[in-house]
Amino acid sequence: MDVPFATVERIAKYLRCLKRIKNKKIKLVSSQTLAEHTKVTAEQVRKDLAYFGKFGRTGTGYDTEKLAKKLEKILNPKLNWNVCIIGAGALGHALTNYPDFKKAGFNITVLFDSDPKKIGNKIGTAKIYDVKKFSPITEKKKIEIAIVATPENAKEEIEQIITKSKIKGIINFTPATLNIKSKRKIPIIDVDLSQKMYILSFLITKGKRRQ
Amino acid sequence: MDVPFATVERIAKYLRCLKRIKNKKIKLVSSQTLAEHTKVTAEQVRKDLAYFGKFGRTGTGYDTEKLAKKLEKILNPKLNWNVCIIGAGALGHALTNYPDFKKAGFNITVLFDSDPKKIGNKIGTAKIYDVKKFSPITEKKKIEIAIVATPENAKEEIEQIITKSKIKGIINFTPATLNIKSKRKIPIIDVDLSQKMYILSFLITKGKRRQ
Repeated sequence: MDVPFATVERIAKYLRCLKRIKNKKIKLVSSQTLAEHTKVTAEQVRKDLAYFGKFGRTGTGYDTEKLAKKLEKILNPKLNWNVCIIGAGALGHALTNYPDFKKAGFNITVLFDSDPKKIGNKIGTAKIYDVKKFSPITEKKKIEIAIVATPENAKEEIEQIITKSKIKGIINFTPATLNIKSKRKIPIIDVDLSQKMYILSFLITKGKRRQ
Repeated sequence: MDVPFATVERIAKYLRCLKRIKNKKIKLVSSQTLAEHTKVTAEQVRKDLAYFGKFGRTGTGYDTEKLAKKLEKILNPKLNWNVCIIGAGALGHALTNYPDFKKAGFNITVLFDSDPKKIGNKIGTAKIYDVKKFSPITEKKKIEIAIVATPENAKEEIEQIITKSKIKGIINFTPATLNIKSKRKIPIIDVDLSQKMYILSFLITKGKRRQ
């Protein structure tokens, strides 16, 4: 079964929404409520969930906690991932301390940098290693996910080290498009914070827009 | 005309894609190419663009540069925004230095924090002010967008100071849901980096998934 990428993205949004509702101790949730919170239609919510089986009973809504657990299992069946960050600058630092990663089962174990002043230091419990040792360290520490938080001009070096490694997936915070020439298919998620700013800008100005 | 939120999100993705294609000096782009790069259907691309008028001619594709300019104008008609960051920790620091904000017309002008050791310092050219002075400083500096990069437990204080201010839009990096009780409708964009991790986790494991 091939689940559309957009569905996976929305499932992640429903999960965020369910966790919030769960924190408010609300036991049942309708597809309408999920739809309103994630800015889609209720029909879309039901269609997306249908990819993964039957949830809830008609008319009564979904059990908030059960649905949250199921969606979490769908998205993250492995539950625990060792993650490294390439780039121990301000962004790498911030991501290492991002509290929700750990809660969701993503453990930032090590960082990599090329700056001799940073190598050997620690951010919290995560040690900064020389990026030249990327493959041996990530293999030894069983790291499967790499977060790229370097300046854009490190692109080629990053591509080379990841291609040679056993990394299984990438979150890319640089504006560059990474080309990993590996026979293994390595999924890459690009995080572009400017996109969020553009969307906000649209929402602020739309009242004043000529159509 | 009411443009669906999902369309606005996709328009921002098309824009990112067009900028990349433009950098490769490719002059014409088809809806199919835009679709592949942003993981939607070509029909969806055409439908989304149709909300904003006619672009390109049937069969020849879109002029990459012109379409990029038009989409940028649709998303960000104002071109220049003064932005502040609440929270001068590692994340606030990283966001202040995020190179693509400035390129897209979003200028991080000042930061706010409650830590006396940080107040008065600068990150690049942006000065850190006492969060107690939020309203007078943001009004004086004509700041319309606030990025919230504080710990989650600052939620209530943040809600209060933003409600009293003239801020027009918010990017929220905390896991908390902000309730701004203002008569003005203030759009809030939540950035949840765990969602990206969940999506990556799904993509890595989907080959090994029982259906």
